Amino acid sequence: MKNKISQPKFDKINPELLVAMDYEYRGKKIEVTIETDEFTCLCPWSHLPDFAKLTIIYVPDKLCVELKSLKLYLQSFRNAGIVHESVVNRVLSDLTKLISPKEMHIEATFNLRGGIKTTVKADYKK
Amino acid sequence: MKNKISQPKFDKINPELLVAMDYEYRGKKIEVTIETDEFTCLCPWSHLPDFAKLTIIYVPDKLCVELKSLKLYLQSFRNAGIVHESVVNRVLSDLTKLISPKEMHIEATFNLRGGIKTTVKADYKK
Amino acid sequence: MKNKISQPKFDKINPELLVAMDYEYRGKKIEVTIETDEFTCLCPWSHLPDFAKLTIIYVPDKLCVELKSLKLYLQSFRNAGIVHESVVNRVLSDLTKLISPKEMHIEATFNLRGGIKTTVKADYKK
Amino acid sequence: MKNKISQPKFDKINPELLVAMDYEYRGKKIEVTIETDEFTCLCPWSHLPDFAKLTIIYVPDKLCVELKSLKLYLQSFRNAGIVHESVVNRVLSDLTKLISPKEMHIEATFNLRGGIKTTVKADYKK
Amino acid sequence: MKNKISQPKFDKINPELLVAMDYEYRGKKIEVTIETDEFTCLCPWSHLPDFAKLTIIYVPDKLCVELKSLKLYLQSFRNAGIVHESVVNRVLSDLTKLISPKEMHIEATFNLRGGIKTTVKADYKK
Amino acid sequence: MKNKISQPKFDKINPELLVAMDYEYRGKKIEVTIETDEFTCLCPWSHLPDFAKLTIIYVPDKLCVELKSLKLYLQSFRNAGIVHESVVNRVLSDLTKLISPKEMHIEATFNLRGGIKTTVKADYKK
Amino acid sequence: MKNKISQPKFDKINPELLVAMDYEYRGKKIEVTIETDEFTCLCPWSHLPDFAKLTIIYVPDKLCVELKSLKLYLQSFRNAGIVHESVVNRVLSDLTKLISPKEMHIEATFNLRGGIKTTVKADYKK
Amino acid sequence: MKNKISQPKFDKINPELLVAMDYEYRGKKIEVTIETDEFTCLCPWSHLPDFAKLTIIYVPDKLCVELKSLKLYLQSFRNAGIVHESVVNRVLSDLTKLISPKEMHIEATFNLRGGIKTTVKADYKK
Amino acid sequence: MKNKISQPKFDKINPELLVAMDYEYRGKKIEVTIETDEFTCLCPWSHLPDFAKLTIIYVPDKLCVELKSLKLYLQSFRNAGIVHESVVNRVLSDLTKLISPKEMHIEATFNLRGGIKTTVKADYKK
Amino acid sequence: MKNKISQPKFDKINPELLVAMDYEYRGKKIEVTIETDEFTCLCPWSHLPDFAKLTIIYVPDKLCVELKSLKLYLQSFRNAGIVHESVVNRVLSDLTKLISPKEMHIEATFNLRGGIKTTVKADYKK
Repeated sequence: MKNKISQPKFDKINPELLVAMDYEYRGKKIEVTIETDEFTCLCPWSHLPDFAKLTIIYVPDKLCVELKSLKLYLQSFRNAGIVHESVVNRVLSDLTKLISPKEMHIEATFNLRGGIKTTVKADYKK
Repeated sequence: MKNKISQPKFDKINPELLVAMDYEYRGKKIEVTIETDEFTCLCPWSHLPDFAKLTIIYVPDKLCVELKSLKLYLQSFRNAGIVHESVVNRVLSDLTKLISPKEMHIEATFNLRGGIKTTVKADYKK
Repeated sequence: MKNKISQPKFDKINPELLVAMDYEYRGKKIEVTIETDEFTCLCPWSHLPDFAKLTIIYVPDKLCVELKSLKLYLQSFRNAGIVHESVVNRVLSDLTKLISPKEMHIEATFNLRGGIKTTVKADYKK
Repeated sequence: MKNKISQPKFDKINPELLVAMDYEYRGKKIEVTIETDEFTCLCPWSHLPDFAKLTIIYVPDKLCVELKSLKLYLQSFRNAGIVHESVVNRVLSDLTKLISPKEMHIEATFNLRGGIKTTVKADYKK
Repeated sequence: MKNKISQPKFDKINPELLVAMDYEYRGKKIEVTIETDEFTCLCPWSHLPDFAKLTIIYVPDKLCVELKSLKLYLQSFRNAGIVHESVVNRVLSDLTKLISPKEMHIEATFNLRGGIKTTVKADYKK
Repeated sequence: MKNKISQPKFDKINPELLVAMDYEYRGKKIEVTIETDEFTCLCPWSHLPDFAKLTIIYVPDKLCVELKSLKLYLQSFRNAGIVHESVVNRVLSDLTKLISPKEMHIEATFNLRGGIKTTVKADYKK
Repeated sequence: MKNKISQPKFDKINPELLVAMDYEYRGKKIEVTIETDEFTCLCPWSHLPDFAKLTIIYVPDKLCVELKSLKLYLQSFRNAGIVHESVVNRVLSDLTKLISPKEMHIEATFNLRGGIKTTVKADYKK
Repeated sequence: MKNKISQPKFDKINPELLVAMDYEYRGKKIEVTIETDEFTCLCPWSHLPDFAKLTIIYVPDKLCVELKSLKLYLQSFRNAGIVHESVVNRVLSDLTKLISPKEMHIEATFNLRGGIKTTVKADYKK
Repeated sequence: MKNKISQPKFDKINPELLVAMDYEYRGKKIEVTIETDEFTCLCPWSHLPDFAKLTIIYVPDKLCVELKSLKLYLQSFRNAGIVHESVVNRVLSDLTKLISPKEMHIEATFNLRGGIKTTVKADYKK
Repeated sequence: MKNKISQPKFDKINPELLVAMDYEYRGKKIEVTIETDEFTCLCPWSHLPDFAKLTIIYVPDKLCVELKSLKLYLQSFRNAGIVHESVVNRVLSDLTKLISPKEMHIEATFNLRGGIKTTVKADYKK
């Protein structure tokens, strides 16, 4: 069947896809902002797709998130059922475990459902 | 009559439609923003419709507002006569009673009437 | 009950609210565009509110639509259950019956539902 | 009284304020567009102010409208009671009488009243 | 004369048009923002019209400004000659006298004149 | 596993999800525009997600597309591998087979990949 | 005097600054659009500066306008007194004389004066 | 020569054009913002025109800047050669000398040159 | 040297990088639009970088342009010196040679230089 | 070969291109903001071009950056392979070494790659 493809990487949220890399200018404070309009997961109750704009802001300590690995990790939510509040807490938890940043902020703005737009924000400080 | 339908849920502001749900990550601070462009009620004097953009921002303690129930609660203002200042105070009062959040902010921007646009904002802190 | 008011004018679509007035410059072609962001009716299946931006464009012959009466007529859809395609056909039918214009165009863009925005357009030529 | 000033030039629509000037490049077709956001008059029924964005487009034949005189002419509507359709027809009539252009288009978009925005357009061809 | 109407309410700035109403939720802090794009007065030197976007923000104590009366009060500047700085100070003075708010901010942005846009802001604290 | 849910409806493009409904005003020409920002499928080569804004415009003959069924049909592309040009041709083919419209236009604008944004458009006329 | 500099190139409109260059792909139709927000001249009556956005569109025949020379030519209007209609006709005349294009369109939108924005357009066809 | 006019007022930066006027509401703090998109001077090295958006914000003490005189003063930079940093410092110096305000902020954003946009800001506090 | 990398693919405009692929729905007319904000080349006179937004629109006959190969081809202009008019003609020539489309339109809008923005458009019809 | 030009200045990041100039108003605090949309370098892994909007904000002490030299310095990144975090740290390091400012802020927003937009910010204080 031409239009069907196997997709093992999308069957569960997979933090093992994440890769850290050394922050070369250790000691010099920078702030990194990563934004994507392509976050999608499933509503755990209706099993229908949700879409969000996701923003990650962090101040690295010794490690940075490698961007391509982050993209794959975020794509691993594609077929997972997860509520709005958990998306933000889960991403925050997986990324702080990976790179132990000085600060991190996660923010997700979900597309309108029933005329309502929802944004959830969470913060972490070392 | 094809175009007329009974609508018991719209005949008065009904906070009993609201449903709370546990905040799963208790102890981790998040901020939730809920926006809708579809708030409508009636002017208590002219009985003509008013329209507003309504924004609810809160920091949950132990409970969150379930979004679908919130939508139904907001729709219950549809045929109620209520002034601008009361809309904001009423929503704040009903929601803080329901979920007892750490903080809550309600903001309503009403559509132009007579060339005048009105915004009302109210805050709550535990 | 402070917040509940009787509202006989909203219980069915009511074209009798419409008032025509003479077009004073008969013979001189003008085009009139009327836009409102405040059109609302109910979904006939879910009984939930729908919201639309409604545009009416017409070239008067002998009569114009009186604007205040048009506003009241459009408000009479507030508690009526009616599908998107019928909204546009119904407004077109009621207004052409009233003022028999040279041309008329009706267009309604309904708010996002399930991530989908729908626009319906209909035209009339004498 | 400091804040009150006499204002004879605003007491009626005054086409005598208009001044024409020769079109220097006669035979060469140009199109002139004049836009103002500062048109205001009174509603003849409520006596309340109306505001509009007014656009004048014309192709001069032998004469152009002098801009400063046009500004004064448009200001002469300030305290006059006149309906939307008449504003456009009146400006078209006064200007075509003055400069007899090859073509002229007048368009006025009135500010929201009762949630409704109205645009009226009229055309003239020699 | 069809286009001329008497307009006693526009002949001087008239704070007597203002009406206060009780703030029903006394003790609960709200902030009210009122914006209009339709403020107009006359330049006291040139007698030519000025146009401004006017914003009023206040925190009510025991009284609110009734919106319709505010609209009529602002319209009473229509034919008054008054400079930019005075507009803001006058509105602030008339409104604080009326409702004695906890805080008030007035801001007026006047339309471009000679390529220059001017904004004037004034504040009041009880 | 909390975050994993079975999702049989997303495993292949499924036109059987589509439902037609009678066009009630047959003989009266209307044009229907349906837009969604939430179209997503997979790249058949990289197996990575693609995202698009999809627009469907049609003039119904005897049948309309039921909107909820359309949403489900479009969601069935979620895990299918399909190239840009085929998305548009496939949707056009499935929808014209379903409702045999007088005219139909399909347009998909895919998100930036490698700095390049691609739009594909296809048309059908009876 | 530090802030004063001699500026012979700005003392009159100077078409001799214009340079043509061969159109290398002769026979292949292209359309060139040149836009600048930095056109300025003086009002011949008040001697005050005017500012405009100027657009030049042309289809070259055998010659193109060299861009740097065009910039200098347009700068030569800086201290010249010239009315709006003449700006457009003068630029059209100087450029068609220089490169004899297949078609040319000149358009100038002058900044607001007295609340009025003016655009003048002129066309040339070989 | 029709297009050339004498222009003594543009031959050097001329602070003598500035006029102060009494601030009528002395003791009441207001903030005045003045913006123009029409600031232009010459580059002292290339002698080519520079264009900027200039913003002046101040809190008057006993005096205000008269707007028409400010316009003429800013126009006196038209043919003066002056670098970006000096524009802001010069305007700040001339205006604080004139009206001795409580605070003043000057900001100039110069048009793109070589793909680079430059903004310079300076502040004054009594 | 860490920051220097060899880059053979950027040393000349290289149409051999382009790859065509079969248009699967031959006979069904589609229109493909490809846009990039990342086109850059060098000015052949100053050797300084130029930047443009490039748009390619075409109706395929038997072949489509493979997008990744197109990206590489456009990147091969990076260090080539080429004037604006030639960019558009060169891309048009290389692409029509590759896929022999029914129609093609190329459009490039170059970033501001000296306050001037330039757009060049070229068309091809079989 | 017409389209190939030698380009020695682009073969490595070259801080020697930078030129400082005296800050004439020493002791008077100004803030200078420099923005460009034309920053481009190469990804050190894929050797493909990256594009960014770069912003430099600084408070000069005794020296300013000469703008033309800054442009040439930024262009020297064109064919260098360098990661996002290093771009910002490198520019900050080269510029603070040159002019020893009181404060400096560097910010780069890179174009979307794989649906992800990245911004990196770094600060310096004397």
